[in-house]
Amino acid sequence: MRLGKRSFEFENSINILSGYSIVGPKEAEGNFGKEFDIALTDDLWEEKSYEKCECKMHREAIKGAIKKAGIETENVDLILAGDLLNEISASNFAAREFNCSFLGLYNACSTFGEAMIIASIFLNSGNFETISCSTSSHFSSAERQYRFPLELGNQRTPTAQWTVTGAGCAVLSRKSRETVKSNVLAVKTEKVDAINSFEVRVTSATIGRVIDMGIEDESNMGAAMAPAAADTLITHFKETGRAPSYYDAILTGDLGLYGKELLAFILKDEGVTLPDYYEDCGAVYFKEEQKCVQGGSGAGCSSTAFCSHFLNKLMRGELKKVLLVPTGALLNKDTPLQKETIPSIAHAVAFESFEIK
Amino acid sequence: MRLGKRSFEFENSINILSGYSIVGPKEAEGNFGKEFDIALTDDLWEEKSYEKCECKMHREAIKGAIKKAGIETENVDLILAGDLLNEISASNFAAREFNCSFLGLYNACSTFGEAMIIASIFLNSGNFETISCSTSSHFSSAERQYRFPLELGNQRTPTAQWTVTGAGCAVLSRKSRETVKSNVLAVKTEKVDAINSFEVRVTSATIGRVIDMGIEDESNMGAAMAPAAADTLITHFKETGRAPSYYDAILTGDLGLYGKELLAFILKDEGVTLPDYYEDCGAVYFKEEQKCVQGGSGAGCSSTAFCSHFLNKLMRGELKKVLLVPTGALLNKDTPLQKETIPSIAHAVAFESFEIK
Repeated sequence: MRLGKRSFEFENSINILSGYSIVGPKEAEGNFGKEFDIALTDDLWEEKSYEKCECKMHREAIKGAIKKAGIETENVDLILAGDLLNEISASNFAAREFNCSFLGLYNACSTFGEAMIIASIFLNSGNFETISCSTSSHFSSAERQYRFPLELGNQRTPTAQWTVTGAGCAVLSRKSRETVKSNVLAVKTEKVDAINSFEVRVTSATIGRVIDMGIEDESNMGAAMAPAAADTLITHFKETGRAPSYYDAILTGDLGLYGKELLAFILKDEGVTLPDYYEDCGAVYFKEEQKCVQGGSGAGCSSTAFCSHFLNKLMRGELKKVLLVPTGALLNKDTPLQKETIPSIAHAVAFESFEIK
Repeated sequence: MRLGKRSFEFENSINILSGYSIVGPKEAEGNFGKEFDIALTDDLWEEKSYEKCECKMHREAIKGAIKKAGIETENVDLILAGDLLNEISASNFAAREFNCSFLGLYNACSTFGEAMIIASIFLNSGNFETISCSTSSHFSSAERQYRFPLELGNQRTPTAQWTVTGAGCAVLSRKSRETVKSNVLAVKTEKVDAINSFEVRVTSATIGRVIDMGIEDESNMGAAMAPAAADTLITHFKETGRAPSYYDAILTGDLGLYGKELLAFILKDEGVTLPDYYEDCGAVYFKEEQKCVQGGSGAGCSSTAFCSHFLNKLMRGELKKVLLVPTGALLNKDTPLQKETIPSIAHAVAFESFEIK
């Protein structure tokens, strides 16, 4: 059901069957370290290039999420995926391995939000049963594609962020985890992992619009993205009629420490005060001693953080209502060179945890 | 309504309010030359770079389609867009100019099909009223991004295609053209263009999957894409229960002359014979004397061909049932250098023309 120009409430149950995350070694030493499904010990994963590693992570995250959901690939109706490589090639090459419909998405680091929203509207329409949503990024492939060859050893600016090496995938379905569990157990004896006592559902969402406040510095993406996050949050609260306190967790994607501060500042100016527990996946991803300056970023930042730590908390009922707002800076390597400013976008997706009776 | 694993029939009317196309000078001299809305006299359009020109074409195509539909920007619920620039930057920068929700898409040259399918499922769900679908490409920006600087003057290979300089946009709506016409005429005296005596609707669609038959030559994208087109066509005919003869036009996206031949060959092997009137937008886009080798390609190829010549024919009732199958090669500049083959995809969208009583 449409709540406003950009917000929706889903009257049917859009259940999250599983979340799966694969990250690099640095990420595994960060704050969510223990909760990722796979932590690589090197950032090539036996591949010959960072790009091929990103593709492998992406593919294995989809496979892992499908397996963890207790379903088979043929039960997946559609793969929605995106990443930061040019022409989303990690997603394309990952999708090649699955005999499923595929729609490639690109909204930079907010793509995970974009995928979840399209999946939810598709599932809510009754025409799909199960859809996988995945995004990835890789520090080393992003550095050489967007910035400089790593070999140059460039110094990082004070507002720089660290692209997360990781792939996250969530499987969304009209079926509940309880139903899938019973079905699977009826035909198999294999243990189905992660069936807890709460169903997690996507209950509402707000689609972002492109906002450009004239930030020119591509090393300060938090500043470019904060106004887009503010716009989407304000729209979400207004159109759903909810106050920030409706949620027990509000998470932006990858604004970083400075962007997070800027968001609170912009929102305050608009009369919206974020609760103390508001957090940014990027800002909280790494530990201070890991020297990631402003924090994590990348299309794999919010997807791996959500598909591990936060989804686990929802599935255990420790969080009841979570608003995830992945943020994306819509530049490419050439646009700043052609004197363009940085347009940004943010999508909001609301999750709720329901106790299984 | 879902017809099969990948095909859908839309029980609600998904009307095409308008199609708008802007092309470069070479395209204007091609076979559809007289039917484009704007034909540029140079391929920079007063911009300082080909990329900026592509962005301007994309933005103006969306604006043009909205105006031609007889609606205002605030009536557009969502912009679905994609292009061939890295990180779909033509679409991102175009979307910046509209105060609308935005979802960025990438399925290479099949993105126009992807956009129409997402739009149709969204509109059919009842949660959206009007959505714009647009794609673009630019010969000169594509050459330097995917191949070589134009200044090198490289010779073209015998299987090369010519990236179309163009942007096409279609506005899809739950409202009919007749309703919009009456609404507009009630409040305005301004003449609303292109209201003819037929409504054109998206009636069914088949989502593609990624197919990779091991083609390594990035100058032979027709060969890489033909198997994906065959897979989608076979699936479409099977799942909808329709024979090729159900349609009075079947159009693939940009297989080119050789890819078109290859498609017919593959399909024949699978027991499907395409009718004589089967055509490929790329193969038919340019005239032989224009020396475009295999024909046109690019995300703007099928969108500008459809939003001009073919949509006009549907709107005049000269074509009744059209199946458009945009095709895309999912490589980037680096994947062939890293010894990857070329995965491809194709989406099928069926249009029907209904006489307004």
